[in-house]
Amino acid sequence: MRIVRRIKEMQSFSKAMHRKGKTIGFVPTMGALHQGHLSLIRRARQDNDKVVVSIFVNPIQFGPQEDYKRYPRNLGRDARLCRSAGVDVIFYPDVTQMYPDSYKTYVCVVDLSDVLCERFRPGHFKGVVTVVTKLFNIVSPDFAYFGQKDAQQAIIIRKMVEDLNLPMKIKIMPTLREKDGLALSSRNIYLNQDERREACVLYEALRLARKLIKRGNKNSLDIIGKTRQLINQKKSARLQYISIVDLKDLRPVGKIKDRVLIALAVWIGKTRLIDNIIVNPKIMK
Amino acid sequence: MRIVRRIKEMQSFSKAMHRKGKTIGFVPTMGALHQGHLSLIRRARQDNDKVVVSIFVNPIQFGPQEDYKRYPRNLGRDARLCRSAGVDVIFYPDVTQMYPDSYKTYVCVVDLSDVLCERFRPGHFKGVVTVVTKLFNIVSPDFAYFGQKDAQQAIIIRKMVEDLNLPMKIKIMPTLREKDGLALSSRNIYLNQDERREACVLYEALRLARKLIKRGNKNSLDIIGKTRQLINQKKSARLQYISIVDLKDLRPVGKIKDRVLIALAVWIGKTRLIDNIIVNPKIMK
Repeated sequence: MRIVRRIKEMQSFSKAMHRKGKTIGFVPTMGALHQGHLSLIRRARQDNDKVVVSIFVNPIQFGPQEDYKRYPRNLGRDARLCRSAGVDVIFYPDVTQMYPDSYKTYVCVVDLSDVLCERFRPGHFKGVVTVVTKLFNIVSPDFAYFGQKDAQQAIIIRKMVEDLNLPMKIKIMPTLREKDGLALSSRNIYLNQDERREACVLYEALRLARKLIKRGNKNSLDIIGKTRQLINQKKSARLQYISIVDLKDLRPVGKIKDRVLIALAVWIGKTRLIDNIIVNPKIMK
Repeated sequence: MRIVRRIKEMQSFSKAMHRKGKTIGFVPTMGALHQGHLSLIRRARQDNDKVVVSIFVNPIQFGPQEDYKRYPRNLGRDARLCRSAGVDVIFYPDVTQMYPDSYKTYVCVVDLSDVLCERFRPGHFKGVVTVVTKLFNIVSPDFAYFGQKDAQQAIIIRKMVEDLNLPMKIKIMPTLREKDGLALSSRNIYLNQDERREACVLYEALRLARKLIKRGNKNSLDIIGKTRQLINQKKSARLQYISIVDLKDLRPVGKIKDRVLIALAVWIGKTRLIDNIIVNPKIMK
């Protein structure tokens, strides 16, 4: 396994692979790898000749009050995990290379970027889409893998790839969870013991919403109200938002008739966690 | 020579060429080809194994009151010119393929896009940079060729390519001119006989500015005032702007000490024309 720090070197690797007719699977990450990332890497390993993982904590997707500085960084541990998962290259650029002082170019996906998380993290998705566009141009993968856990991100990136005609495909893989339902996230390590115990409330709220829909409740406001009550019972939890939206355009759905995305963000103490599920009211189970 | 209308077919062509180790030179155009375009194509022909020319009148770079509808279109003539210049592929997509109804993604180069032409054509460069990003992803050229005549466009696109790490190079080629100095442009055909005679005033104004600088005048405002007087003498001419700016950041230069870009836009009757030159006060000639 190689660790590549230079953009030009990464581009040369990819160009050489494409010349040989090899496919490249790509998993962009901010490091602090967990089993969720590893499930993406394993899938990339199955589907492709070569697997590239990028590790880059992208400053322009963090707000000024957010956790850019304290975001967990541990290249040694991440590299060991990547090596044992069969990764060929870790792309590990530094910030000044990705964003020199004269940096001026941004990629935006309108409409999809002004709802859900973006209302509370203005500019977040512009930062995400911009860095992902750069990474795709550097790695030129055939397939890139994202987790369903960051549903809005995955939907926006898939749209960008389609709109800008990037010659590649996005694969969105299922969210991995702890036994109590908490979605795997690099930010879970911020939680203390009490918070960790209460953090399962995100998935509990989503399951409650699913149960209500499956029982025939079609009223989004009513469902949102009931999940809010559930979350408010936890001492350390503060709901930021819960939304029931259309899967394509991410607009709120009043009356649930078709597949919807239910997404929420909850503060557990000082840690903001997100989660989501897709529910189809037509399939009873 | 092939005419390719489908995005997927164009991408397959480029992928096959890259697999064979062939280089691709690309000249993006809006059609209505003139000798300026042909000089770019000839250069692309010299430098590369394969030459692709795109012909696409890009709606999102035109303002609502601009000439999108009447912009000259003549595929037959353009195709004959391309064939005799040795072009391998004309990429000729339609608007609904490039911008389906659900289209949402835009690329912006901040700072460079809010000066010069953009002040009078709001959103113009967002449209240009977005379509060029799409075309680069579709054609994946090794080199793309632009004319110095559209200086701001060329500088912005070169910046986008650098910032987004596109694995390719931009070449900017000199402006071609008629005998009286008028820069070649697809819009020159809009001019009637009187207007055509007076249209040489753009280059006359630029040459006056250069002469003043070469004689030691360093005062931008003074130079701009004198060129404005010259332009005002022509009956059909109305100056939109003339600016003396830094070549890198396109910011106005008050005192001319180093290389500058002198750019102007002039209405000749109902036709808006642009032109520019680069002047280095340190090189006397």
